[in-house]
Amino acid sequence: MEEKMKGFFKVQTPEQLYGKMDRFKPLSFERVSIEDSLHRVLSEDVISPINLPEFSRSTVDGFALKAKDTYGASEKNPAILRLVGEIPMGQVSGIEMEEEEAVKVATGGMVPKGADAVEMVEYTERVDSHTLHVFKTVSPLENVIQVGEDVATGEIVLRQGHWVRPQDIGLLAGIGKIDVHVYLRPRVGIISSGDEIAPIETTPQPGEVRDMNRYTIVSMVKEAGGVPFFLGIAKDRFDDLKQKIEVGLNESDMLIITGGSSVGTLDLTRDVIRSFPGTEILAHGVSVRPGKPTLLAEMDGKPFLGLPGHPVSAMVIFHLFGRPILKILSGRTEKEAQHGKKLKAKASRNIPSVPGREDYVRVKLEEREGTLWAHPIFGKSGAISNLVNADGLMRIAINDEGLEEGEEAEVILI
Amino acid sequence: MEEKMKGFFKVQTPEQLYGKMDRFKPLSFERVSIEDSLHRVLSEDVISPINLPEFSRSTVDGFALKAKDTYGASEKNPAILRLVGEIPMGQVSGIEMEEEEAVKVATGGMVPKGADAVEMVEYTERVDSHTLHVFKTVSPLENVIQVGEDVATGEIVLRQGHWVRPQDIGLLAGIGKIDVHVYLRPRVGIISSGDEIAPIETTPQPGEVRDMNRYTIVSMVKEAGGVPFFLGIAKDRFDDLKQKIEVGLNESDMLIITGGSSVGTLDLTRDVIRSFPGTEILAHGVSVRPGKPTLLAEMDGKPFLGLPGHPVSAMVIFHLFGRPILKILSGRTEKEAQHGKKLKAKASRNIPSVPGREDYVRVKLEEREGTLWAHPIFGKSGAISNLVNADGLMRIAINDEGLEEGEEAEVILI
Repeated sequence: MEEKMKGFFKVQTPEQLYGKMDRFKPLSFERVSIEDSLHRVLSEDVISPINLPEFSRSTVDGFALKAKDTYGASEKNPAILRLVGEIPMGQVSGIEMEEEEAVKVATGGMVPKGADAVEMVEYTERVDSHTLHVFKTVSPLENVIQVGEDVATGEIVLRQGHWVRPQDIGLLAGIGKIDVHVYLRPRVGIISSGDEIAPIETTPQPGEVRDMNRYTIVSMVKEAGGVPFFLGIAKDRFDDLKQKIEVGLNESDMLIITGGSSVGTLDLTRDVIRSFPGTEILAHGVSVRPGKPTLLAEMDGKPFLGLPGHPVSAMVIFHLFGRPILKILSGRTEKEAQHGKKLKAKASRNIPSVPGREDYVRVKLEEREGTLWAHPIFGKSGAISNLVNADGLMRIAINDEGLEEGEEAEVILI
Repeated sequence: MEEKMKGFFKVQTPEQLYGKMDRFKPLSFERVSIEDSLHRVLSEDVISPINLPEFSRSTVDGFALKAKDTYGASEKNPAILRLVGEIPMGQVSGIEMEEEEAVKVATGGMVPKGADAVEMVEYTERVDSHTLHVFKTVSPLENVIQVGEDVATGEIVLRQGHWVRPQDIGLLAGIGKIDVHVYLRPRVGIISSGDEIAPIETTPQPGEVRDMNRYTIVSMVKEAGGVPFFLGIAKDRFDDLKQKIEVGLNESDMLIITGGSSVGTLDLTRDVIRSFPGTEILAHGVSVRPGKPTLLAEMDGKPFLGLPGHPVSAMVIFHLFGRPILKILSGRTEKEAQHGKKLKAKASRNIPSVPGREDYVRVKLEEREGTLWAHPIFGKSGAISNLVNADGLMRIAINDEGLEEGEEAEVILI
């Protein structure tokens, strides 16, 4: 069986490959306005130059007072306070409060000097223009947010490596940050390869197919925070492939080539990248199904990912290896990309698997009486409709012989 | 308690409000290239004009043959076939196969006429240039993806209302779609209101605070697929508010105003929107905590959402009502916005709640031995740092008295 000898010389498990990824490093950084920092990654710790709030604020509509003046107050036995004024919103108050006084204040308004709590309007009654009855005890600091209680001057509010969300931008606005340093988005050059691949605008000749993977990969790169650009379709010829990879290396931070599911194509790609000085092959084949014919290399310090040609395999491998690499280049330091990208579901039927490789099964998710069920979609990994019908990829661990009906496993949402 | 009488005239539960949302309708549509359709919503059913694949393809590297010629073949007793040629990738084959013949084919290559299966190269041995030994039985159609097996001509491949993902774009490419009709993105006008609100570029005067919510809301609108634009900070004056709302109504598909946590501000906003003809107030107060001081109205057919001023409340209310409205305007028809936006976790300690309102508690998520735990972050809803430290909002249902330690509940990821 001579043909068996060809093929995969350096098959790696996902764990082995993850262990090799620390050779890649975050890119440089740039300054962007906080509005443009959404879903970018901070390249600096952000330190607050101010206290937040900068003055004591009421969190309710009510009356600022000294808490001890309300002790023992009840519906039947109200505390009786002198109403000495009102704090208009957005204005500072010169009032310095004495005992048994109350000052009207709205939500967000300044709590005047001498007051240590705010009674909610619901528990008060203004009996005349100078007299307030209070029907409920408040504790010191109740309904007040104190100077620096939210954020203190000098505090690190967001750390380098943090992926910016809407509330983070709100906080940056609150402390007066107009712009912020973020890591550059990785530019990802994408090459389609294969003599059978035709641009989608053309009518494929018999034996040719339209270039589906280009569009899937471009979109997945965008979702992972990269900036994709397309380098063209390379024929299965050494020179054509070499020329496109050369251009890609010059213009991008990462290269992805899609299309090499046949051993011949995979070997050609390997030979081409080996012809560049400073190339190290990290994996030539991975123990993942679908997705075995995967190439991962470092070329001149840059990651090179050769994805299998089957649409399902390409998507699985991009999720397993492409996303983590882009995360590293983007400087993200959180343990998980996002809680929401993975979840757990129960298999709705037995799903067989062969130990020795990680299996990823397309699943459709369904919530039934509070339980999330994953229905496996069986079918050929060359079929794109499988992916379109799927909500996620369910993982069967490398040493498992499959999942039993009702067994829980991790699902990557796609 | 006269003050108690002011306030909320039309407090609604979330369920009541969801029941009123079908008055809003999807916007018009536009044509975009499939590359630009990522995360947009289809406004048409997409029908495939072709079969996919257009010819029978091999899913492996191997030899095309007639399956019945391999029946009974084994390692010890191989089937012996005549090797009659090879199919180059991307080319059509004129070969019409006879019995006991084999033709070499690579992954993705065309399976020639007369062949009904492909034997993987691993189970073959080429003994000389004309003779192939086959060591394993294959079934008819094994390792072949047939004409139209992935997608059939005339099949609806994607439905109106579908949110476009990378694999969907791959499929569109595969069937030769260059562009596609999608719903317009809702333009969302955003007004900040409050005499105390200062632009972030300025140094706030004593009593003023920087406009945090503007930035949080703008970012949340972007995440929900809308196109936000800012209409300015309105002072707590009828005319100023009215003028900004007027501009907003002309230029946007939805209006959001943030800042009205005090009863006075909320009532002012209500009075202003009532002064427009064709305004219907749908809610003036919601039974959600935090988030009670919420206004929802229909103005001239367009949704108007008045968010509470507290950052936490604003975020909760946007997730509960702003996102679903944007989903309707965007034409999305899936039941769930995204499985990944919500998940389930167990409370790491008792969390009290008052029946009669839905509570949303900020939580930090932690996975421990395969279980997702939610640690509540207690603190004032005026504090933005609570949101920055949180991964999600844990829901306590309207009639619950709280969650017990270990009890599972839904978490909206933020």
